[in-house]
Amino acid sequence: MTYTAQMIETYPAEIELDHQELARVIDALSNCAQTCTACADACLSEPADELPRLARCIRDNLDCADICTTTASVLSRHTGYDAALTHAQVRAALQATKTCGDSCEEHASTHEHCRICAQACRETQQALESLLPKLEPKGQGPRQPSQAAPQQGG
Amino acid sequence: MTYTAQMIETYPAEIELDHQELARVIDALSNCAQTCTACADACLSEPADELPRLARCIRDNLDCADICTTTASVLSRHTGYDAALTHAQVRAALQATKTCGDSCEEHASTHEHCRICAQACRETQQALESLLPKLEPKGQGPRQPSQAAPQQGG
Amino acid sequence: MTYTAQMIETYPAEIELDHQELARVIDALSNCAQTCTACADACLSEPADELPRLARCIRDNLDCADICTTTASVLSRHTGYDAALTHAQVRAALQATKTCGDSCEEHASTHEHCRICAQACRETQQALESLLPKLEPKGQGPRQPSQAAPQQGG
Amino acid sequence: MTYTAQMIETYPAEIELDHQELARVIDALSNCAQTCTACADACLSEPADELPRLARCIRDNLDCADICTTTASVLSRHTGYDAALTHAQVRAALQATKTCGDSCEEHASTHEHCRICAQACRETQQALESLLPKLEPKGQGPRQPSQAAPQQGG
Repeated sequence: MTYTAQMIETYPAEIELDHQELARVIDALSNCAQTCTACADACLSEPADELPRLARCIRDNLDCADICTTTASVLSRHTGYDAALTHAQVRAALQATKTCGDSCEEHASTHEHCRICAQACRETQQALESLLPKLEPKGQGPRQPSQAAPQQGG
Repeated sequence: MTYTAQMIETYPAEIELDHQELARVIDALSNCAQTCTACADACLSEPADELPRLARCIRDNLDCADICTTTASVLSRHTGYDAALTHAQVRAALQATKTCGDSCEEHASTHEHCRICAQACRETQQALESLLPKLEPKGQGPRQPSQAAPQQGG
Repeated sequence: MTYTAQMIETYPAEIELDHQELARVIDALSNCAQTCTACADACLSEPADELPRLARCIRDNLDCADICTTTASVLSRHTGYDAALTHAQVRAALQATKTCGDSCEEHASTHEHCRICAQACRETQQALESLLPKLEPKGQGPRQPSQAAPQQGG
Repeated sequence: MTYTAQMIETYPAEIELDHQELARVIDALSNCAQTCTACADACLSEPADELPRLARCIRDNLDCADICTTTASVLSRHTGYDAALTHAQVRAALQATKTCGDSCEEHASTHEHCRICAQACRETQQALESLLPKLEPKGQGPRQPSQAAPQQGG
């Protein structure tokens, strides 16, 4: 069991999402962020005649790394859960992994790091696609007032 | 002219968004991120009998700080611009500033730092609301292949 | 008065550093992070024959952006202040702004965005150099036990 | 083999550090960042009478999460390697994992999430302590001029 899963199990209030799936998505996002950071740097060290066509791929790597890191953090917080915010950020991560996966795939046959990064993006995209409908903000009223004990807001 | 505006002016390709508005949004996001980080910490130093009702506010501050920082970075990149990704991330920031602004506003009369943070969130929310329709992905086809010179992809 | 300064003034416990200087350093770090993110992207959009010699500059921009963002966050927190941690992170930021300032300066005569970014790095470096000695961990004993009220740990 | 290790193996230039150790350190930092983010949030959901004594622990968690994320990114970049910068940032991460490990350990017997987080911090601290001497900036002259092909700067 990873630390991610252990932290979910020891959270002092209830988490309504499936614990295993949540841990898997958070770990996929963390791994994808690292892979994208590394892929951007690997692209920068490609030979001079290769580098220009990798410019967009680098940019997409940087966006995807930032967005996956932030989304992993949002999904790691459960206190005062806000469905609309989580849903919107997960949608942004879905788009970022799709965009970056497409960019890296274009270079997968010439650059191994792009092939691996495309794979990390696709896996994360699929994990997010499966999670997204479970985050749908319900037709619920506004969040409970924050005077409610925070441990009941999970 | 802030550095943000100067960097937009010296970008070596075209940026289709209004330069002044873009600089204003990026600066609002950066300021909002710092304010939220500071507000989370100020809440942590409130007296013991106040702290529990600030738990959700702290959580919303942390999300808003992370999301605003990432959104400022995405909006600071113009190479190989991807409308769908930018649009999705700006929508997430809109939701984050709304959620955090609401949370802080609940405590604005008792905590000055929450009052100021609510103001920073509202300003950023309004700046993002004005920007969002201009980012709408058009019914355009897929992005140009990345073999195109990157300096034409702005 | 910027939001940064206002948040320092409304922090509910004591902050021992000079408030104006602290606000100036935090704002310099936030601005520098944004400028470095924008400079990395501007480099990526330079013509194909220019791009390869900018590879290291881009890398230094990315490091400097990440490190300045993190250092701004650390300096925005005052609860349970830990001198050794703050000192170490500020030293890392000093090195990052020096490294990136040197890299950008090499290209200042050919690329306006590098000239501006070098200036942002130098200003931040100077602000950090002035702050650093005031953060020196004193020969103090260990931090007070955390049972102490947090609002006294500022 | 994790993605981290695969990305190191497919980097197009030489990386002088031991590849397995480097991958282990980067993964430890990523895991530690996630654990600290989750621990801060778990603390926020503890009962009202527990929360005040966790304020410093939350603050240390937030610093440690930010610093570990940034350090993982710096160690994931190899283009134009700068020993002084890497060394300084790894030292900051060493201090952050020590500070946060100490804080969480104080609460390890009452809060399972603090016990797990202390363990993640200790493991990361040890991995960084073992890496640090290998990063020592040598009495080398200045970095090669950036006109050198970037793929030789690994």
